[in-house]
Amino acid sequence: MKFSVTVTLKKDVLDPQGKVVQTTLKNLGFEELKSVRQGKFFEVEVDELDQRKAEIKIKEMCEKLLVNLIIEDYKINKI
Amino acid sequence: MKFSVTVTLKKDVLDPQGKVVQTTLKNLGFEELKSVRQGKFFEVEVDELDQRKAEIKIKEMCEKLLVNLIIEDYKINKI
Repeated sequence: MKFSVTVTLKKDVLDPQGKVVQTTLKNLGFEELKSVRQGKFFEVEVDELDQRKAEIKIKEMCEKLLVNLIIEDYKINKI
Repeated sequence: MKFSVTVTLKKDVLDPQGKVVQTTLKNLGFEELKSVRQGKFFEVEVDELDQRKAEIKIKEMCEKLLVNLIIEDYKINKI
């Protein structure tokens, strides 16, 4: 069973990496650009047939390693 | 108008970063883990009311800066 995990910085956390991308896109001529925020993306496959159990495992992986809960939010989706 | 851009490595491209995460999760005791692939995630906001036009702009940003089309695929979604 395969899941996607999207990790984003919380709203009030500064995102210098996203800022650089934003500035670069502006310099490339994308005037209508308002903002860019960068995050992380994982595709995680687990050997588990029960979707509920699999989601609990993925959630545990997020909280133990993939996500810094102090500054980041995350979303899990089945793919 | 806000869009998410998910950038993933093409299927046959090696992903050393994902491999490290995978090994670490295994070492943390997640035996049922089969694979991890890591990608990038962007939240892009543009000042454009026409969704079709906005999507064309985002696509252009992807192909000019955000994505390396030789080794990466990307997906754009409205949020």
